[in-house]
Amino acid sequence: MATPAEFLNYIDSNKDAFFARLRDAVAIPSVSGDPARRDDVLRMGDYLESQLKAYGVETKRAELGEQVSEGKTLKLPPLVLGRIGNDPGKKTILIYGHFDVQPAAKSDGWNTEPFELTHDSKSGRLYGRGSTDDKGPILGWVNVLQAHHELQKPLPVNMRFCFEGMEESGSEGLDDMIYAEVKKGKDSWFHGVDAVCISDNYWLNTRTPCLTYGLRGIAYYKLHISGPGADLHSGAFGRMVHEPMTDLIHLMGKLVDTDGRILVPGVDDMVAPPNEEEKAIYNKLDYSIEDVEESVGAPIALSSDKAAVLMGRMRSSSLSLHGIEGAFYGVGAKTVIPATVCGKFSIRLVPPQTPENVTPLVQRYLDEEFKKLGSKNKMSCEYYHGGRPWVEDYKHWNYQAAHRATQAIYKQDPDYTREGGSIPVTLTFAEALGVNVLLIPMGRSDDGAHSTNEKLDVSNYLEGTKLLGSYLYEVQALTKA
Amino acid sequence: MATPAEFLNYIDSNKDAFFARLRDAVAIPSVSGDPARRDDVLRMGDYLESQLKAYGVETKRAELGEQVSEGKTLKLPPLVLGRIGNDPGKKTILIYGHFDVQPAAKSDGWNTEPFELTHDSKSGRLYGRGSTDDKGPILGWVNVLQAHHELQKPLPVNMRFCFEGMEESGSEGLDDMIYAEVKKGKDSWFHGVDAVCISDNYWLNTRTPCLTYGLRGIAYYKLHISGPGADLHSGAFGRMVHEPMTDLIHLMGKLVDTDGRILVPGVDDMVAPPNEEEKAIYNKLDYSIEDVEESVGAPIALSSDKAAVLMGRMRSSSLSLHGIEGAFYGVGAKTVIPATVCGKFSIRLVPPQTPENVTPLVQRYLDEEFKKLGSKNKMSCEYYHGGRPWVEDYKHWNYQAAHRATQAIYKQDPDYTREGGSIPVTLTFAEALGVNVLLIPMGRSDDGAHSTNEKLDVSNYLEGTKLLGSYLYEVQALTKA
Ligand SMILES: [Zn+2]
Ligand SMILES: [Zn+2]
Ligand SMILES: [Zn+2]
Ligand SMILES: [Zn+2]
Repeated sequence: MATPAEFLNYIDSNKDAFFARLRDAVAIPSVSGDPARRDDVLRMGDYLESQLKAYGVETKRAELGEQVSEGKTLKLPPLVLGRIGNDPGKKTILIYGHFDVQPAAKSDGWNTEPFELTHDSKSGRLYGRGSTDDKGPILGWVNVLQAHHELQKPLPVNMRFCFEGMEESGSEGLDDMIYAEVKKGKDSWFHGVDAVCISDNYWLNTRTPCLTYGLRGIAYYKLHISGPGADLHSGAFGRMVHEPMTDLIHLMGKLVDTDGRILVPGVDDMVAPPNEEEKAIYNKLDYSIEDVEESVGAPIALSSDKAAVLMGRMRSSSLSLHGIEGAFYGVGAKTVIPATVCGKFSIRLVPPQTPENVTPLVQRYLDEEFKKLGSKNKMSCEYYHGGRPWVEDYKHWNYQAAHRATQAIYKQDPDYTREGGSIPVTLTFAEALGVNVLLIPMGRSDDGAHSTNEKLDVSNYLEGTKLLGSYLYEVQALTKA
Repeated sequence: MATPAEFLNYIDSNKDAFFARLRDAVAIPSVSGDPARRDDVLRMGDYLESQLKAYGVETKRAELGEQVSEGKTLKLPPLVLGRIGNDPGKKTILIYGHFDVQPAAKSDGWNTEPFELTHDSKSGRLYGRGSTDDKGPILGWVNVLQAHHELQKPLPVNMRFCFEGMEESGSEGLDDMIYAEVKKGKDSWFHGVDAVCISDNYWLNTRTPCLTYGLRGIAYYKLHISGPGADLHSGAFGRMVHEPMTDLIHLMGKLVDTDGRILVPGVDDMVAPPNEEEKAIYNKLDYSIEDVEESVGAPIALSSDKAAVLMGRMRSSSLSLHGIEGAFYGVGAKTVIPATVCGKFSIRLVPPQTPENVTPLVQRYLDEEFKKLGSKNKMSCEYYHGGRPWVEDYKHWNYQAAHRATQAIYKQDPDYTREGGSIPVTLTFAEALGVNVLLIPMGRSDDGAHSTNEKLDVSNYLEGTKLLGSYLYEVQALTKA
């Protein structure tokens, strides 16, 4: 184990200071989605910057300009960039995190005031908005900096920081800023970065730490069918004309099977079956069918084979039918023949799928199937938006370091997970910097990010802080050889 | 021709009085659906009753009690019943009509004030709410009464009247009232009725008078599918669980074909194919594919065979998919997996189909198809509401009389039509009285009942008045033999 006991002891001895830090941060309601809270987001950025400075980090604000929201012009919260260490004998690690949070109000069903950190010593939990998403993790890094500063120990790696205040609101301006910063070459605050580390997701369960090496992409589609000039009455026109809803339902029914199989030819086929090594990863994951069914609230898992179900989320594409615009959606009964309807569906993507290579398959297939219907209505399938999937090389030293750190702190091997959703900045860093990106969560699956009664377990906060520090030492140990 | 010239001349000579009568009626905004207009509905009933009385009709109000609307208790407008004539040597004809109207506001897109009858002498049209639905037709009967009263001519038949003020708002209380009145036997105001005549629908086109001898029924269904305990995120759960929308779309797609064929086994089969005589009726109808496509605003007729398309509406059942409750219906994109969805569809029925014999077929079929899917979600198909179809014997003297009257007044044979929608009171009279019911429209297909700029052509109002009177004479002529 490469991590000095001195550092670990410091964390144990100063937990009250760390709680106080998280309390101060949670008390700032930095809700990026609420224009009335924009000043709090800016204040939270200031707070974070002052903490970094206090522990010897050189900082800079990267202004992102303005945003127009509900007719008001609002200043976008600047990125807080930081750098510490320039030792050419050490690796340089870029840390990303976000200091804005989701909205929260006691009246939503919180048991405590959402913007007052509540330490429930019985359950060992810290309740509060942002506790786990993402203030706990970013303050974990600050705790690591404090420890080294107070102990007057040099950090085992050079560190760079990129903290954002608009993550919960679409990360406006972030990607452009990252690409612009990278372009500066030697003058870039990202210059020389060897790997990226992000702590902004969760364990697969409540028991086992994990490392996350993949995220699905997405391609969102709108399937338009139009016929009559206006809505018709089914009494007057039923069985006289081609009804757009009939065509739409038929086409949507040709996209995906009840068992989740994507029926668009070629889409599922793009994905190679798992090799033995990969299969072993899924079989090893500490997650059961019962876990799935408990989290969805019904016994509706697609299979009784745990690995198959987990692969469904992590290494398979999926196609979900979200709904229909233009049809009758109210309670009660209406005998309308809707004139124009639009089916919404999306495909979650895994490599080598991309919106660019999947979209032509979807559109060609729907064209063919629509032709087969023999309808006189008009059909078009619009690609609406999307993003590429990301899968990382989990044998890279960046992951090995995190693996060893997990063993050192948690005394167990981490799960290796891929997430079904997307964290777009991951792909941006991977593409803009061309380096390995590691996702190393601090919190558990039941933390309730974005939900009421968001929490972070005390043990996750403190052991998580140790984990982050230990990871840096393992990077050093693995790469100095 | 059985109609005295004296009567026909009277109509031609008194058109200004008839216009004034329609103007007075249109000026009373008897909107039954607007609680604020309830007094106007009552006032319109009074006006109508006073007119009937003025021409020798004995009247009675049948109170229907109260209604609770938006928390307010409102008096239901009483039925206006009437009777004139008790000659045992004459047939007794019951007339139904309604004196309430749909809402209307100039700002909806009217070119004129909706509650001011506007006579456009260039086009020969009378614009105003209720002009064609149904104040014009009921005042047509009053015009007939006036003519006979002024000319001191006895009516050729005994007449009974049943005028309603809640037709546009679900005819609350009407059916019960009719059954209760019939039960009174000799004391019933419907006692001795030999046939019913209703003028509350429209020609198939703008050129040819018609007689309507059929209406489709309806069976409305809600197809429920539920799975997860709450909506899920498609990133986190796509391809892990059975998605209710996938199942719903598959089941809805198994109900009806693009060409309108109902896929529920046994439903279409119940309906016997048309015999030669019936086919001749459809081929003879003055209606083209172009008429269909002009009225729907797109070239989407199911066939290029006019008779086939008309039979689709008039003598075939139809199944329309109206929409989905519980799924995403907004503009834009949402990556939700809806937890509980409900598909709405309905089947228009023709004899011998009824909600009672069709519903078990629908439910059994959906049960079987759902089983085939192999989904772990829950499905149920709820019969929500419905009504039986109605088809009348169009060779009955009641129709023959109307046929001859049409020839006499319009110098052409009427079209024989069946409507795709329903007029529930028709079935109620047919069942409660056990007599032949005739639908004899006054207005044209383009009158715009329920729409902006509702109109009645002057010629339809005046010739229509003659037609109604002439029909009574033809009844007498046909039945006294
Ligand atoms: Zn986050
Ligand atoms: Zn978040
Ligand atoms: Zn009407
Ligand atoms: Zn109406």
